[in-house]
Amino acid sequence: MINSLKILVTALIACGLTTKVLSAEEINSDLVSNHAVFILNTLLFLIGGFLVMWMAAGFAMLEAGLVRSKTVTTQLTKNVALFSIAAISFYLVGYKLMYPGDSWWISGYLGPIFSVTVLEPVGPVVDQITALDSASVGSDFFFQLMFCATTASIVSGTIAERMKLWPFLIFVVLLTAFLYPIEASWKWGGGWLHEMGFSDFAGSTLVHAAGASAALAGAITLGPRLGKYKENGTITPMPGSNMPLATLGTFILWLGWFGFNGGSQLALGTISDAVDVSRIFTNTNTAAAGGSLAALVLTQVMYKKVDLTMVLNGALAGLVSITAEPLAPSIGGATLIGAIGGVIVVFAVPLLDKLKIDDVVGAISVHGVAGIWGTLAVAFSNGSLGVQIMGTASICIFVFVLSLLIWHVLDAIMKIRVSEEDELNGLDNSELGIDAYPDFSKS
Amino acid sequence: MINSLKILVTALIACGLTTKVLSAEEINSDLVSNHAVFILNTLLFLIGGFLVMWMAAGFAMLEAGLVRSKTVTTQLTKNVALFSIAAISFYLVGYKLMYPGDSWWISGYLGPIFSVTVLEPVGPVVDQITALDSASVGSDFFFQLMFCATTASIVSGTIAERMKLWPFLIFVVLLTAFLYPIEASWKWGGGWLHEMGFSDFAGSTLVHAAGASAALAGAITLGPRLGKYKENGTITPMPGSNMPLATLGTFILWLGWFGFNGGSQLALGTISDAVDVSRIFTNTNTAAAGGSLAALVLTQVMYKKVDLTMVLNGALAGLVSITAEPLAPSIGGATLIGAIGGVIVVFAVPLLDKLKIDDVVGAISVHGVAGIWGTLAVAFSNGSLGVQIMGTASICIFVFVLSLLIWHVLDAIMKIRVSEEDELNGLDNSELGIDAYPDFSKS
Amino acid sequence: MINSLKILVTALIACGLTTKVLSAEEINSDLVSNHAVFILNTLLFLIGGFLVMWMAAGFAMLEAGLVRSKTVTTQLTKNVALFSIAAISFYLVGYKLMYPGDSWWISGYLGPIFSVTVLEPVGPVVDQITALDSASVGSDFFFQLMFCATTASIVSGTIAERMKLWPFLIFVVLLTAFLYPIEASWKWGGGWLHEMGFSDFAGSTLVHAAGASAALAGAITLGPRLGKYKENGTITPMPGSNMPLATLGTFILWLGWFGFNGGSQLALGTISDAVDVSRIFTNTNTAAAGGSLAALVLTQVMYKKVDLTMVLNGALAGLVSITAEPLAPSIGGATLIGAIGGVIVVFAVPLLDKLKIDDVVGAISVHGVAGIWGTLAVAFSNGSLGVQIMGTASICIFVFVLSLLIWHVLDAIMKIRVSEEDELNGLDNSELGIDAYPDFSKS
Repeated sequence: MINSLKILVTALIACGLTTKVLSAEEINSDLVSNHAVFILNTLLFLIGGFLVMWMAAGFAMLEAGLVRSKTVTTQLTKNVALFSIAAISFYLVGYKLMYPGDSWWISGYLGPIFSVTVLEPVGPVVDQITALDSASVGSDFFFQLMFCATTASIVSGTIAERMKLWPFLIFVVLLTAFLYPIEASWKWGGGWLHEMGFSDFAGSTLVHAAGASAALAGAITLGPRLGKYKENGTITPMPGSNMPLATLGTFILWLGWFGFNGGSQLALGTISDAVDVSRIFTNTNTAAAGGSLAALVLTQVMYKKVDLTMVLNGALAGLVSITAEPLAPSIGGATLIGAIGGVIVVFAVPLLDKLKIDDVVGAISVHGVAGIWGTLAVAFSNGSLGVQIMGTASICIFVFVLSLLIWHVLDAIMKIRVSEEDELNGLDNSELGIDAYPDFSKS
Repeated sequence: MINSLKILVTALIACGLTTKVLSAEEINSDLVSNHAVFILNTLLFLIGGFLVMWMAAGFAMLEAGLVRSKTVTTQLTKNVALFSIAAISFYLVGYKLMYPGDSWWISGYLGPIFSVTVLEPVGPVVDQITALDSASVGSDFFFQLMFCATTASIVSGTIAERMKLWPFLIFVVLLTAFLYPIEASWKWGGGWLHEMGFSDFAGSTLVHAAGASAALAGAITLGPRLGKYKENGTITPMPGSNMPLATLGTFILWLGWFGFNGGSQLALGTISDAVDVSRIFTNTNTAAAGGSLAALVLTQVMYKKVDLTMVLNGALAGLVSITAEPLAPSIGGATLIGAIGGVIVVFAVPLLDKLKIDDVVGAISVHGVAGIWGTLAVAFSNGSLGVQIMGTASICIFVFVLSLLIWHVLDAIMKIRVSEEDELNGLDNSELGIDAYPDFSKS
Repeated sequence: MINSLKILVTALIACGLTTKVLSAEEINSDLVSNHAVFILNTLLFLIGGFLVMWMAAGFAMLEAGLVRSKTVTTQLTKNVALFSIAAISFYLVGYKLMYPGDSWWISGYLGPIFSVTVLEPVGPVVDQITALDSASVGSDFFFQLMFCATTASIVSGTIAERMKLWPFLIFVVLLTAFLYPIEASWKWGGGWLHEMGFSDFAGSTLVHAAGASAALAGAITLGPRLGKYKENGTITPMPGSNMPLATLGTFILWLGWFGFNGGSQLALGTISDAVDVSRIFTNTNTAAAGGSLAALVLTQVMYKKVDLTMVLNGALAGLVSITAEPLAPSIGGATLIGAIGGVIVVFAVPLLDKLKIDDVVGAISVHGVAGIWGTLAVAFSNGSLGVQIMGTASICIFVFVLSLLIWHVLDAIMKIRVSEEDELNGLDNSELGIDAYPDFSKS
């Protein structure tokens, strides 16, 4: 009898251990297992990451379509090179600078410069994963890198057709290794803007307005293209050479933006996250639709003819606008936020021309002005307008001032602008010696 | 002793509770948890949705490549705008019209017009999810929207080079808010065709033949392009301006179709669903291969030279053909169904020309004739031929008649066709004032 | 008392049964369920597969951009057709030839030729799945097919501008039905190279160097394009007609490569796999970045001007180089492996020109030389250099010799090269009769 009880107790202890493992809090037949959460979060970063990587191609096509045929090869080269540079800068410096961890203040700035990104070991055992409710370091690095690269992509379009290749590439090194990671860390690295309650879901300001600020500094330093602004006040149209490419680029960006905003949910391991990512996809799409239609209607009303480049930039402005808060708005709200972005672009592009700031593809209007609008619009749903203004201003001023400094230093060292003759002949001739369309370009 | 037993019993009750939670029906170590099913289903819709969204770019590139260079910008504008319009129409009216829920008949038609789509709240608690074996509303809306947009994309190619921008866009509003959602609800909304057993897995008829019916009505209303059909009976070839774009568009559509058909499995949370989605991917791919090779061989045999545009349309016809039933056939069967689609296109395109119906990109043949073929071919594996014929006929006639009516009303109000002079100069000049290729187009 | 014990024992048995089902080894609240593992593995193949399918478009665009405008339509036709042929060849013969299962030696070669690929039945019950730790047959077939098609894509670029359409397509049939599946089975089918410990993660040699070997045999058989190598030793530059297309193609390939290498992990159902796939994504990206920047800097240093086509081929060479082992290296190591790939291409391209081997797009250098480099570089992290050399040599020689034989037989039967007049007029004229750019091409 005692013996039987002994067996029973032993069995019960075993049974008890099992029930402990499977207690309601630790496992529930409804819930996703811890490992599955980790895998799904990682998968979201990987899918989001490859979609945002695809945006690099979108910028390349958009810009190649909007510049004149004599600078297309240079524009393409800049886009491929800036993406490659971002990959290496972010690995060597940027990622650790952006996510300094606990030591955010001092060592957060000094330490990372001397250490590179290290991923988890191959096929890790569970206890090497720091947080099962997170995602793999590799997927996080991959995803975040693409945001860094996007910031640089924004710059290349504005300063097209007159800037030399190499000064641009050197600027990209500094932007992707230092400028972007530092300002992005203020929010996403848990820095002072984060502590103040600044809200920027996927980077209307941290990525887009920041990139536009760097671009603006470049455009001011460079000055406009030869002949763009005549002395008599007229503006010479310099139409893009390939509308299908510009449209393709816009569609690529539109597609990639699902990864940009959706991946910024950072998690897919719970039904809440799945619902939220779905909201974000829908809102992102409808904001682009609102932006493009607003520009379509507005250009028809204002100029009596629809302007495709405005429609494309309107869609992009809608996407930029919703990026600061793609989750909270209803579909209708998101459409409206995007539509206002589209309206902004239709007014901002000619305004910049009046200021004689020559932004070849309209990136300052699309990513800068609409980015600021989107960041401030967060105040409608969550966050305070004051904090939003302060955050946006801090980042834009920080990036603009340092960029202006860098552009001027580069100009002093190596002259960032090509000669007049080279500009008139086209950068493809002077900088690269390869025509984009040797068989059929007039130029 | 009694005491020990008490402890034992208490422990057993706890143990028993645990075993209850983990009973075979509620949880099984093999099965996927309820929440994971919901997440995986949602993920399928999101991935499928972004792939089908990408098809909008495919149509834009295909059509931009197949029209003459003087109407490329207009064609691109139409494609971007129609996609944007679909997003907003489907949100405002279409989605609720298409899925009226229980109240399918009367209130199903009147109610939705006055209510917009509402998603789940942000980060919902579990009890706000209506069905854990389903997917998030946002992901479903996102996915279904793309089908609605695809229907409109099919129309734009056929009526290219002669229709004004604005009447086309007004038509798209009506098509995406009413026509498509109503006929699609007959099957996918649980309507009368669904009850009769009509089978159309991913929309060979509901999407493709429906879009082609609207396009046919447009082509008939518009008449052919100037000079296309000479009085002496000869047909003037009007070759597409950019074969790489047309090919790129085809590849984009091919890629997007994995989302189109694969996502239409609607679920990925069980191994059965995973196996089925895999079958669908394989069959979709092989049907496209069959279609393109059939057109390749047939044009070689019939015309002694391979015709790339036919090869591309053959691939698309293969994809359209397999869309009504991409799951049931074997790989060989799917290849054959696709190949017959390819053959159909090679014969349908010149036949339409003989009827003097000017379909600029071949969309009526590809999406209409091959779509009908695919829907009828379902009878080989499941479903009755009679019901398939009735369903296909009902939808095509419904869309065709209403579209014809709309086109004529629009024509009466605002004339849908550009002037002869504008057509000869090209729509890019008259409608938009932006050349697609200003640097190197002859025209 | 006895009674109570009876109840207790009964309860304990029930409890014990449960604990058995849920024993630590079979289920753990942390672990992913067996079915979820199967679904996630399948999902990885499907995502990986559609990304690699997209590479077919990448090759088409890259090659269309790098050939002269008078052969663009032919180049596009070849690319669409080869992908379609691969789909059907691999279904009819290749897949079963490549994975002969247990009967690898004799029946492995004879059996498959008479049996086609059969997928799991629709909606299978669990016991029809052979291995829950694997993935669906459909997803595996879909994924592996894309590798087979990639091998053929590599060939088309090298032999461009002078080979007839039909002999090329016949070669593709043989390559995708027999040559590729046989050599790939040596490693991935569990064949003799696998048994010897040869290591080629995603196919630097099995896919890329193999494709390049077939291309080299074709280039030698064909001879160079007319006028390419002048008698006085000078080499006539024949610049590609469309740099944006070439760049787009490169970005597409770069994107697709995440599927190519990431999917080759073959599993996503454990956190180890998720971490590994993340490492692979990051390393793949950084290798491309390293390759493109190496080529950028090197062409600047060597030729005083950056060469975009070299930058693009450098990125591709980086991708090819890391393909044999994208998992083990650190990010820095992967960057270096890719960069060396980029350097190799800058030297290999002019070297082939010196040997008067006319490789129109540089595929032999990119996929062949860099592929061999990548395969040998595996020895740094795992595997023996001797075995790597033997495996690489075996595969390259096998494919090269058989390809040379096939090209010569085809040449004897039907002449594989177009006439001089047709070559000068352009293949689009002679082979297809469709201009790629009828509205604006000079030629």
